[in-house]
Amino acid sequence: MTTVSSDTLIVGQQATGTDITVPVIRFTGTGNGPSVYIQANIHGAEVQGNAVIHHLVELFNCHPPKGDVCLVPMANPLGINQKSGEFTLGRFDPITGENWNRQYHFDASLIDQLAQSHLNAPEAEVAAALRQAMGVQIDAKLASPFGVKSGQHLALRLQKMALQADIVLDLHTGPISARHLYVPSYAEERAHLFNIPLNIVIPSDFAGALDEASFSPWWQLSDAMAARGRALPVLVDAFTLELGSQEYLNVASARDDALGIARYLQSRGVLDPFELTLPKTTQYACSLDNYRAIYSPCGGQIEYLAPLGEPVSAEHPLARIWHFDALATSLQQSRELRLPVDVIPVLHFASASVRQGTELYKVLTHYYRLSGSDVS
Amino acid sequence: MTTVSSDTLIVGQQATGTDITVPVIRFTGTGNGPSVYIQANIHGAEVQGNAVIHHLVELFNCHPPKGDVCLVPMANPLGINQKSGEFTLGRFDPITGENWNRQYHFDASLIDQLAQSHLNAPEAEVAAALRQAMGVQIDAKLASPFGVKSGQHLALRLQKMALQADIVLDLHTGPISARHLYVPSYAEERAHLFNIPLNIVIPSDFAGALDEASFSPWWQLSDAMAARGRALPVLVDAFTLELGSQEYLNVASARDDALGIARYLQSRGVLDPFELTLPKTTQYACSLDNYRAIYSPCGGQIEYLAPLGEPVSAEHPLARIWHFDALATSLQQSRELRLPVDVIPVLHFASASVRQGTELYKVLTHYYRLSGSDVS
Amino acid sequence: MTTVSSDTLIVGQQATGTDITVPVIRFTGTGNGPSVYIQANIHGAEVQGNAVIHHLVELFNCHPPKGDVCLVPMANPLGINQKSGEFTLGRFDPITGENWNRQYHFDASLIDQLAQSHLNAPEAEVAAALRQAMGVQIDAKLASPFGVKSGQHLALRLQKMALQADIVLDLHTGPISARHLYVPSYAEERAHLFNIPLNIVIPSDFAGALDEASFSPWWQLSDAMAARGRALPVLVDAFTLELGSQEYLNVASARDDALGIARYLQSRGVLDPFELTLPKTTQYACSLDNYRAIYSPCGGQIEYLAPLGEPVSAEHPLARIWHFDALATSLQQSRELRLPVDVIPVLHFASASVRQGTELYKVLTHYYRLSGSDVS
Amino acid sequence: MTTVSSDTLIVGQQATGTDITVPVIRFTGTGNGPSVYIQANIHGAEVQGNAVIHHLVELFNCHPPKGDVCLVPMANPLGINQKSGEFTLGRFDPITGENWNRQYHFDASLIDQLAQSHLNAPEAEVAAALRQAMGVQIDAKLASPFGVKSGQHLALRLQKMALQADIVLDLHTGPISARHLYVPSYAEERAHLFNIPLNIVIPSDFAGALDEASFSPWWQLSDAMAARGRALPVLVDAFTLELGSQEYLNVASARDDALGIARYLQSRGVLDPFELTLPKTTQYACSLDNYRAIYSPCGGQIEYLAPLGEPVSAEHPLARIWHFDALATSLQQSRELRLPVDVIPVLHFASASVRQGTELYKVLTHYYRLSGSDVS
Ligand SMILES: [Zn+2]
Ligand SMILES: [Zn+2]
Ligand SMILES: [Zn+2]
Ligand SMILES: [Zn+2]
Repeated sequence: MTTVSSDTLIVGQQATGTDITVPVIRFTGTGNGPSVYIQANIHGAEVQGNAVIHHLVELFNCHPPKGDVCLVPMANPLGINQKSGEFTLGRFDPITGENWNRQYHFDASLIDQLAQSHLNAPEAEVAAALRQAMGVQIDAKLASPFGVKSGQHLALRLQKMALQADIVLDLHTGPISARHLYVPSYAEERAHLFNIPLNIVIPSDFAGALDEASFSPWWQLSDAMAARGRALPVLVDAFTLELGSQEYLNVASARDDALGIARYLQSRGVLDPFELTLPKTTQYACSLDNYRAIYSPCGGQIEYLAPLGEPVSAEHPLARIWHFDALATSLQQSRELRLPVDVIPVLHFASASVRQGTELYKVLTHYYRLSGSDVS
Repeated sequence: MTTVSSDTLIVGQQATGTDITVPVIRFTGTGNGPSVYIQANIHGAEVQGNAVIHHLVELFNCHPPKGDVCLVPMANPLGINQKSGEFTLGRFDPITGENWNRQYHFDASLIDQLAQSHLNAPEAEVAAALRQAMGVQIDAKLASPFGVKSGQHLALRLQKMALQADIVLDLHTGPISARHLYVPSYAEERAHLFNIPLNIVIPSDFAGALDEASFSPWWQLSDAMAARGRALPVLVDAFTLELGSQEYLNVASARDDALGIARYLQSRGVLDPFELTLPKTTQYACSLDNYRAIYSPCGGQIEYLAPLGEPVSAEHPLARIWHFDALATSLQQSRELRLPVDVIPVLHFASASVRQGTELYKVLTHYYRLSGSDVS
Repeated sequence: MTTVSSDTLIVGQQATGTDITVPVIRFTGTGNGPSVYIQANIHGAEVQGNAVIHHLVELFNCHPPKGDVCLVPMANPLGINQKSGEFTLGRFDPITGENWNRQYHFDASLIDQLAQSHLNAPEAEVAAALRQAMGVQIDAKLASPFGVKSGQHLALRLQKMALQADIVLDLHTGPISARHLYVPSYAEERAHLFNIPLNIVIPSDFAGALDEASFSPWWQLSDAMAARGRALPVLVDAFTLELGSQEYLNVASARDDALGIARYLQSRGVLDPFELTLPKTTQYACSLDNYRAIYSPCGGQIEYLAPLGEPVSAEHPLARIWHFDALATSLQQSRELRLPVDVIPVLHFASASVRQGTELYKVLTHYYRLSGSDVS
Repeated sequence: MTTVSSDTLIVGQQATGTDITVPVIRFTGTGNGPSVYIQANIHGAEVQGNAVIHHLVELFNCHPPKGDVCLVPMANPLGINQKSGEFTLGRFDPITGENWNRQYHFDASLIDQLAQSHLNAPEAEVAAALRQAMGVQIDAKLASPFGVKSGQHLALRLQKMALQADIVLDLHTGPISARHLYVPSYAEERAHLFNIPLNIVIPSDFAGALDEASFSPWWQLSDAMAARGRALPVLVDAFTLELGSQEYLNVASARDDALGIARYLQSRGVLDPFELTLPKTTQYACSLDNYRAIYSPCGGQIEYLAPLGEPVSAEHPLARIWHFDALATSLQQSRELRLPVDVIPVLHFASASVRQGTELYKVLTHYYRLSGSDVS
């Protein structure tokens, strides 16, 4: 039998003295399954993941997980509660501009040392040693007499929980966006299980995001062991799911993404097999360096023409840029934005008014059908 | 024959010394029709009106207006260019919080004086005197040794152009919004011509907006003359059109609103009659005090349930407010927002995360079918 | 003997479900003195009043007040905790632009009714009736099925406490500012007691601020009674104190302002007489319509030249406006800002870069020595 | 004889179609001296450097430079003109959060290639080749069919000018700050000439700032040549000067910093020797890893106690953090911030209200007297 409990974790303190807290829901595993950590809404405007967690709570109540599960909805109160005009200014710290999802910890120098010292240790012992070493570093950082940044207070406390898990899922959304998934390349064969149409396959680099902070140590450890002649699998899976558009909550449609996650969790042995009915989805993928941003070539007001999630041929217009300052003049009143390659638009900017250099779109280029995909 | 010209008007200066300018397009009238002033985008995120002006330019090129027409797209460069995160922070001056559309001028003390001094003057003379007196006041304000606010530099310079017109249209949008129209009650019989589904009938008060600044002097003059026994019609018509949602540009659909405006202009003698094909639209109206804002009773994340522009019966849910901090607790996880009266939702808030007291919806209550409406 | 207690009052709820609370400190009066309400920091960047309240707590512990005292430091958590860059964006609601100190309640239609119904009632009964009537209105507003704005949730709950007091002090600061005091004209003879150098004498209008919401009902009641032949004094005193510059905390210097308040409270019978040593201060005053804002005549970067709080003769430069875009050109590289009248600069803008129309200074004009002032 | 000219450079375009431009002032060198590039105000609130450029223009008019000089005041119009409340939000792009001074270009892979191909080339030829190669890369970036970011449009166009210079100075300020200088370690012996009290000695890393983008290629080239046995000096000097506090303009005091720059330029042969009278200044330095940020251990309101620029002994309080929510409770009402090491505070945060993790101070630790310093 599973037990579920809920608690709040203090992750900061406001100028007024109010504690900043996040809700933490824990299911105790019924058996020996892998442990799972899932969080949502670290970017303040990206609310849809909370609805997915809502469905996962219901699902785990019916289908008890075999490993421990830790769920953190509304993971970033500072980001969620920060408004500027009618929108949530939730992507970066409004004081420093630092992205809330670039402040997790990983010190790569640990890895070689550990590969050396635990070259012949049993897998479980290696894993425990890496978790232990990273935990010590995180605690030391939090205890520094010089202090740490607000974003690190939050990120490091979340990471201490995520660090204990074998599977880490970070639920985001894009601005105006189709659903897409960041897949570490070692786990590409499992990506299709989530049933997400667009997939970006990423390398083992660390730039501060939670998925990277969760898989990079284990991936680099696997590589370091391999260099020493030992085949050690990457012991942790971590994915970032982008569940559509920001500032949009649709609890009914969140169920499909919860079911995709459940299918993935079944494949990893967290959940027992049971029937899951998922919509048929055509799945595409490309590598991270083929996932390209397109910046506006000029200022103007934008009609976003290309539907998200569907292939667009080279030289087909993605957007029309209007120059309403040129009405009734001989100047060009609008121009089309076209690319020299076939693309699938993944997301576009949230505003209709852009200056030169605004990121208008992100697109898959050199994309291919994801292996394992449902559709023939 | 009509002539069209375009120019830029300086409406301010940046800290860096750059002039702040707006485009001004002028059609010279072919005959003795009323003069028209139309502006768009005084709120920086409300771009759709620019596309309507684009269609009006094309339309006036084919169908020359009989009176002079002045068109100002992108009327507020400061608002349009001010971003905060991915959205335009364009509703109020980011320094002071003052709404860009509350800074026009009207000094009601003029009216009684003028009614007295011109009680028996011909209509044209009365009109010229009021325009003259208001122009003098605006110029004096701009020339004050103490200076005027940034918002007034903009508003007063726009108003000097609008002041010359017999018809003033100010093109806006709501946040996430159905199309709606602010109608001064003396002009209610003409409102249906715009073919806008939702209509709010307003009194002669002045709170600083362009429509009010344009009709209030003439309305109050009409009243002051009436009190002295002279029947003087309200000589100026002014409307605020709200053309859907902010941050959204759709040039094709803007054509319908341009045609609605053309139909109204035909009825006023600005355009000669020609065939206009407008979609059939059910039109509702209510008075301003029955146009109600609904503020969130608590904090939470919102599913906006009620479709905009359609009647919702009393006690039918408009929104569901989620408390994802209560997942896996015994606390209430969501609640519905209901109202004790029948309403038509006009617009809703742009973000899914709201604190207690956020304006969630604006709704028509005690609404009725607009007279003259197309639909039987 | 006095007793002191502290509590927190819920004034709102965040999107994440966290209650928004303010601290409330209450001293129970030892005798029959007037009751007092003092709050600070309703504008988020204006922190110095909190330090004054700190000193008042210490002072009341030594010198028990005879009437009940209610103290609310950090009265606006939403404003205090809202950062944009390195500064507190605390003057207005970041969603709507509405000033946090313009959302208090007063319905003037109450007054005539009450003057009529209580024309011959004893003073205490009149006062109780007005407090009762206003409390009922505030409760009804808060209970509306349509809800109220975030700023009203805060303001109305604070006002319910302030409404019970005979003396209301609202502690603010300017941007970069000399200390100044807003004085309702009926209380001008008492203003000097606060020992604040610059004083602005205001009429009985209501525009939504706490001081106005506190004195206007009583002032208008006094006038309405007078019109009916009864001499009823204004039963409540209310002042807004501006204690220097925002974003600046100096606890030691706050003591002088606490002593000024104590001297005023002694004069009203809240505190017993005891020796108070206050610095000698030259005190000036002018009426509200002579308290003038000066808006920048152009864009540029500013050297603020005139020391705050000291008389500046007509045509003496207050600031130099630099045009660094004109370096090495034949254009004007800087210009001086001068006024045609003698002034005392009270405050200036917080930034060095201004667009045309930015409020550069506020100044006393047609100022005079405050009566009762210490200095011969 | 020198000639001076001024021009404007287009560095972007607003949504409204307005070009974004920066002023560019050029002095033609009288002889064979090194060329110089100096810019100011790339961070929008940091205005004081513009006044230094003003003095340099006057100085160069009297004392013609021997090499070409390019001066760019107000280098970032987007940053300067972006207000949020009464302050300039000028440190990062308000859309993306990216620091305006982290977007310059350097592709380190160029260097090894160039060291190989030009191992025996004359110095001037090597320099020309590196400038040529970097220019080609920058042009290619600007011409990408995918576009570049707004911040890169600005940075790359500025960098194309800076790239031509032998000496690059980037004029900044801190938030509330003492004057300090970032010194590449190879140039430490020249640092004292600027007469700036606090100096931070930095390594050859590249993180996107202009000083790094200017010296890193030449420094790494020198190292790469050294590894191949050729002694090539670092051919470009680049410094970031931090000239006090942001949002503060003092043209008179800017003269001293202009004179410090002149003294440095004399030592490099840009200016002929002439008498310069500089104030005596005690100069300290530490290495970048000893330049430490201190983050607030809790939320609260801050009294900044330690004077900037002066040594503070270990355990001496730097600040007092107040908890005004704890007034009249048994909780701690304030705490002191102390460090376990001797420090010199360089700058502190601009606001008095901070959440946990806000950067309160930056301090020199393990500091030492700068060599060459004036003071005995
Ligand atoms: Zn995200
Ligand atoms: Zn609008
Ligand atoms: Zn204030
Ligand atoms: Zn800087």
